[in-house]
Amino acid sequence: MRYLVTGCAGFVGSTLVDRLLADGHDVVGVDDFSTGREEFIAKARTSASFTLVRGDLRDPAVAAGAARRCDGVFHLAANADVRHGTEHPTRDLEQNTIVTVNVLEAARANGVRDFAFSSTGSVYGEAPLIPTPEDAPIPIQTSLYGASKMAAEGFIQAYAEGFGMRVLIFRFVSLLGERYTHGHIIDFVRQLRAHPESLHVLGDGKQRKSYLYVQDCIDAMLLALREDTGQVGVYNLGTDEYCAVNDSVGWICETLGVRPALSYSGGERGWIGDNPFIFLDCSRMRALGWKPTMTIRDAVVRTVDWLQETGA
Amino acid sequence: MRYLVTGCAGFVGSTLVDRLLADGHDVVGVDDFSTGREEFIAKARTSASFTLVRGDLRDPAVAAGAARRCDGVFHLAANADVRHGTEHPTRDLEQNTIVTVNVLEAARANGVRDFAFSSTGSVYGEAPLIPTPEDAPIPIQTSLYGASKMAAEGFIQAYAEGFGMRVLIFRFVSLLGERYTHGHIIDFVRQLRAHPESLHVLGDGKQRKSYLYVQDCIDAMLLALREDTGQVGVYNLGTDEYCAVNDSVGWICETLGVRPALSYSGGERGWIGDNPFIFLDCSRMRALGWKPTMTIRDAVVRTVDWLQETGA
Repeated sequence: MRYLVTGCAGFVGSTLVDRLLADGHDVVGVDDFSTGREEFIAKARTSASFTLVRGDLRDPAVAAGAARRCDGVFHLAANADVRHGTEHPTRDLEQNTIVTVNVLEAARANGVRDFAFSSTGSVYGEAPLIPTPEDAPIPIQTSLYGASKMAAEGFIQAYAEGFGMRVLIFRFVSLLGERYTHGHIIDFVRQLRAHPESLHVLGDGKQRKSYLYVQDCIDAMLLALREDTGQVGVYNLGTDEYCAVNDSVGWICETLGVRPALSYSGGERGWIGDNPFIFLDCSRMRALGWKPTMTIRDAVVRTVDWLQETGA
Repeated sequence: MRYLVTGCAGFVGSTLVDRLLADGHDVVGVDDFSTGREEFIAKARTSASFTLVRGDLRDPAVAAGAARRCDGVFHLAANADVRHGTEHPTRDLEQNTIVTVNVLEAARANGVRDFAFSSTGSVYGEAPLIPTPEDAPIPIQTSLYGASKMAAEGFIQAYAEGFGMRVLIFRFVSLLGERYTHGHIIDFVRQLRAHPESLHVLGDGKQRKSYLYVQDCIDAMLLALREDTGQVGVYNLGTDEYCAVNDSVGWICETLGVRPALSYSGGERGWIGDNPFIFLDCSRMRALGWKPTMTIRDAVVRTVDWLQETGA
């Protein structure tokens, strides 16, 4: 098969590209390298089955060109920064919603059959139902990021209905593992490298969060692509556990061998739109036979080890 | 108070403008007259309290200029054509989602406190729960129109959370009454004027639909604006009844005094994305003390009478 992977030089995108190539597929990757990294696709670029398109998907022509002759699309390109949404009020709309429609249009125009999308548990806002199932009550959006991803989901579903595309929507918790590039673990590791004696935590440290190892996430997406034959599949992807920010602080410090004094900005939210409790019900994905291989603790330790090995 | 009404020359917009002026408010109206009608705001334009801005809200500068010194916004401008979405795949995104963010940005930049939005029962797709409450399970979108409105709702909610705006979202059923300009009633009336002896119906005629009289809708919006003091209010607006397409065909024919032979395109959906059963649970709005004054039958008859009086 020939797959288009958008955001191919990102954390998840580049990991997926390597997997698809290893599985014998042809891959067209698109990235604008605004956050993607050359080194993440260095190995892929040595493969004759990989084609790199450098371009910005806000330009519909970039999307249209890249989708040519593809059988399926993994649309992973996104602004993944949740925290600073209000400082750039139209960025999430542009990079997450409009770009998704550009890629949908390109897929439609090229007769692409399968469309897989990386959404987020943030679409649930502050869910009244925890663990949160895919058919939770319609949420009230609390972040521009969540709103922009929920918006993209809706357009993808309407394309499935209107144009007969088969679509898969994956609502990820935060991902961890090799090539992890942003989020609280890297913030903490960098703080502790600079000042091992102290660590400042946003919020009260009691926020409960969910994480998943990136290779487990990719296993799930590929399994759903094979097994789910419906028109629209929506799947939560996470582990069957959560941890407190203070738990991950403990694991990070233990892995780094430091014992910093902790200070807190306070409040149950680390920033505007921060969700004090994210925990998804992933039984729908598990019913397909998927099971994550790593616990949250394993994934945190693996991530810290990778950050240390690479000096990232 | 000074209100911005977008889509001020449309069916609902112009009716709201007249009401706000009658209530003693200042009104800035914006319309690009793509579907709005000069005659609908002819009376408003004789008022010193009304300012008309001719412009396309896809241009953020138009929105920014219009929102200046306003206390509240009623954002009603939209592409309201559900049926032909797939023929213009990016129109709903542009006119319903992007324009909404432009108006939100304008409101934020101008310190506007209140933001009211005309959403739609179409956001529920084919709801598994009927009558459908506001907190129904997260729907699968079945039309680009519904997707674009759901997308707009999410950005509005994120603005409420991120910037402290107070927002009200109204999910309308189809509206009827004076100044009604598009939908199946006008299609049927025009067919019957041209050929009183026959009427062609899309679908099997058994689709169950909900309607609300436009003045009842405006009563509800103004009541919620006064009574709901929360940050985010989401309200279904409809009557506590539904009718079959065949019922409304009967009322239209009776009002016009014709007895056409009926033919059907067949199938339970009139077009791609048509929803065979729309019926909203409006108890949340009723709990504020609102009650529609007209039944669906009354509203259909009033609409046909108006179409006949005006030759529309």
